[in-house]
Amino acid sequence: MKFSPLLDELIRELQVLPGIGPKSAQRMAFFLLERERPRGQRLAKVLDRAMSEIGHCQHCRTFTEQDLCEICANPKRAAVRQLCVVETPADLAALEQTHLYSGRYFVLMGHLSPLDGIGPAELGLDRLAQRLDEEQLEELILATNPTIEGEATAFYIANLARERGVKVTRIAHGVPVGGELELVDGTTLSHSLSGRRPLE
Amino acid sequence: MKFSPLLDELIRELQVLPGIGPKSAQRMAFFLLERERPRGQRLAKVLDRAMSEIGHCQHCRTFTEQDLCEICANPKRAAVRQLCVVETPADLAALEQTHLYSGRYFVLMGHLSPLDGIGPAELGLDRLAQRLDEEQLEELILATNPTIEGEATAFYIANLARERGVKVTRIAHGVPVGGELELVDGTTLSHSLSGRRPLE
Ligand SMILES: [Zn+2]
Ligand SMILES: [Zn+2]
Repeated sequence: MKFSPLLDELIRELQVLPGIGPKSAQRMAFFLLERERPRGQRLAKVLDRAMSEIGHCQHCRTFTEQDLCEICANPKRAAVRQLCVVETPADLAALEQTHLYSGRYFVLMGHLSPLDGIGPAELGLDRLAQRLDEEQLEELILATNPTIEGEATAFYIANLARERGVKVTRIAHGVPVGGELELVDGTTLSHSLSGRRPLE
Repeated sequence: MKFSPLLDELIRELQVLPGIGPKSAQRMAFFLLERERPRGQRLAKVLDRAMSEIGHCQHCRTFTEQDLCEICANPKRAAVRQLCVVETPADLAALEQTHLYSGRYFVLMGHLSPLDGIGPAELGLDRLAQRLDEEQLEELILATNPTIEGEATAFYIANLARERGVKVTRIAHGVPVGGELELVDGTTLSHSLSGRRPLE
């Protein structure tokens, strides 16, 4: 034994958190016990509730404890005839922070990955196809990641949209603003070059 | 809003953990929601229990959910007439891993720090003095950290022991000066323990 059974168990369970090994878990446990018991208890309660109550928005699949997320429940967002497809709720949050997009989203909760058993059904693409059928969209924006899987997923969804006569766009990929050409990987640079535009 | 209220709250509360900022907290929340809900729930339950049930050993002050920790409850450890003073339960655990010490401990849960209002009473030194009076100790081993505060604390406790005619030793400075016991490798700590010398 190193610690009491309950303390050992706490240190072990904290290691479910990504990036947390035995040493960090031990430091976390002692920190909470020594200085932050009320906040530790509050974390325990909200974690328990979150794990059981947070599900997916019935409309866009993002995480929410309600039937519809705030964006889907907002009629102003529905009035915009654009739909933006992202891989994760974190990607949705990143796009929201640009304040440049006022339409709705569809969150895949992943990307096509046949080897892991993740196909169109797992990404809710039947639901997406249904939305493409029902909503008079002017544009479907594909904002999946510029990875092999993200590109393959975008390609697959682009076909769904084209079959239904919906215009499809893909977000631009290239050298990050403020970044240096020299430090950017080859794939990004290729995208950047092939996506070039005339200077007015 | 960035996420649903409950998800926002989870991301905020995760930031009570040391070293966890908004980005890491968000990654943790998504990781648990996407892949580890049952283990997330187990963590919530053990965290809740640990915060309310883990107290201090009545004898040595280390963390335990029982009245006495396993070491204090073990008559074999009581038969050894040595007592080792450490600053934290993590230091106790580090010493236990050397397998070179078979006596009991006294855990200060800190060190003297007058500016932070931490004096002899906060470190339980009245209880330690009582043990020095009651137990026929052959040796009091001072294993506080080799920092300014740790040395000052060792000096103070050495006087308590000398007043009672108990032999005092200090672990050797194999531990790097300015370093922390908890972070030192086992070999260094073993040298440090076996190289202890009487305090003049
Ligand atoms: Zn939604
Ligand atoms: Zn004890």
